[in-house]
Amino acid sequence: MTRTPSGPRHRSTFRVRYGETDQMGIAYHANYLVWCEIGRTDFIREELGISYAQLERDGLLLAVAEAHLRYHASARYDEPVAVDTWIERVQSRAITFAYRVVRPEPDGAETRLATASTTLMPLNREGELRTLPRELRQRFDALVGAAP
Amino acid sequence: MTRTPSGPRHRSTFRVRYGETDQMGIAYHANYLVWCEIGRTDFIREELGISYAQLERDGLLLAVAEAHLRYHASARYDEPVAVDTWIERVQSRAITFAYRVVRPEPDGAETRLATASTTLMPLNREGELRTLPRELRQRFDALVGAAP
Amino acid sequence: MTRTPSGPRHRSTFRVRYGETDQMGIAYHANYLVWCEIGRTDFIREELGISYAQLERDGLLLAVAEAHLRYHASARYDEPVAVDTWIERVQSRAITFAYRVVRPEPDGAETRLATASTTLMPLNREGELRTLPRELRQRFDALVGAAP
Amino acid sequence: MTRTPSGPRHRSTFRVRYGETDQMGIAYHANYLVWCEIGRTDFIREELGISYAQLERDGLLLAVAEAHLRYHASARYDEPVAVDTWIERVQSRAITFAYRVVRPEPDGAETRLATASTTLMPLNREGELRTLPRELRQRFDALVGAAP
Repeated sequence: MTRTPSGPRHRSTFRVRYGETDQMGIAYHANYLVWCEIGRTDFIREELGISYAQLERDGLLLAVAEAHLRYHASARYDEPVAVDTWIERVQSRAITFAYRVVRPEPDGAETRLATASTTLMPLNREGELRTLPRELRQRFDALVGAAP
Repeated sequence: MTRTPSGPRHRSTFRVRYGETDQMGIAYHANYLVWCEIGRTDFIREELGISYAQLERDGLLLAVAEAHLRYHASARYDEPVAVDTWIERVQSRAITFAYRVVRPEPDGAETRLATASTTLMPLNREGELRTLPRELRQRFDALVGAAP
Repeated sequence: MTRTPSGPRHRSTFRVRYGETDQMGIAYHANYLVWCEIGRTDFIREELGISYAQLERDGLLLAVAEAHLRYHASARYDEPVAVDTWIERVQSRAITFAYRVVRPEPDGAETRLATASTTLMPLNREGELRTLPRELRQRFDALVGAAP
Repeated sequence: MTRTPSGPRHRSTFRVRYGETDQMGIAYHANYLVWCEIGRTDFIREELGISYAQLERDGLLLAVAEAHLRYHASARYDEPVAVDTWIERVQSRAITFAYRVVRPEPDGAETRLATASTTLMPLNREGELRTLPRELRQRFDALVGAAP
């Protein structure tokens, strides 16, 4: 019997900045990685109970080792954007976050803009790969969630 | 007798993004121009009663002709930042916005991070300088405010 | 019998900009998508015989539909970086570019920083999916290359 | 009798990146500060005889305290851009760099895109203002140049 992971999804919302648009008139594709990082930062601050800024000060860095993005629709300047973030998988030397980027519409519906995942590796200050400290590993484990 | 301008100041708030930091460990200086644009976008949307996105669709572009920035203190990752924006001056072919960027502190005080101004010129879609349409000029005129 | 694709790989070189670093002291991961775009732009300009800027003026846009990145080592401020770009696959409605990002070392060796691929879809000016014009399709087909 | 400063001007050249454009179809104004930093980095590496990366490793940081930009014409995607950088003034606690950003034209002429200056303050690793070390001050002094 498999238990469906029930960890939280966290929603971050903001508007597309002018400087994030390109000459196609839409948000430039590389910004979605920045948006995913906003989602990840907010998820960690709000759900883990310790900010990523504090983790880094404590000597644990989470470096992006892998990123996958699929773009479904485009976002325009000043439009609202929401990023839903959850943890897909936790291993001793890797945490995979998943993201769903949507545009909330006036009628309450949502347009899916992109889906993405990033895998992060724990490093020490010298940039060496290390295993997640046990206590932190347990906290992350408890947060594993499922796709919407 | 001079009347002190009494137009609004608008406050935009957000957190410093990881990608906005540089290897000095602080928000990279060019991002302050992006933050000023956030302040300007919010000011126009909330105070002018028509969004800048709509102004552009109507064929009026406001291009930055001049920018001045003074940096007083630095901002770090995930810290809250507030941009206060007001209109300093309106002319037929130029609007000057002023900005005060601060970090709200837990005790209610504020640390001043930067002060800035940008002068924008009205252009048509072909990129040619034009005068502000009269009706819009009047609306901007009514919004001229004073420094805090 | 399979013919190994023999299309060109194009190398773009530049240095890591200060504003591209983050507080980890290395180039921020989202910039690799920007660097891949430099590689793609140079590849198209130099190998296709028509610049992407011209393609867009002619009404053909190539929008990123998918991106995959693996990060192997980090790049630091002012270090030289080289992006090798080649075409992995051409379909009627999708072109996949592949990238290898390396740091050329003083001894002539190279450190692999990242590998990536992006799939682009042809759009018209209205943002609608279209098939690659036949003549352009043939030109792209002739450029399909193999990984180093 | 005043001696005209005769220090070097250094030219950096590159092309406008796609991600640097905005929905106006031109290079976003904040990128000019990034371009000035490229000019400054190259100037220091090539003219000072020690890279800024090395200065930072040695514990001397140059933080931007002030920036002034005037925009004269716009730059488009994939167009070549050149930044001419020189030192305008050296004081014990401030160095002012000046920049002229141009587009080299096919006929050999140049279109002036922007002029700018940035004033930098020497800081130690703790972010405290310090005076320029004497030996470095002398090297910078010898590089003071004049506007073109």
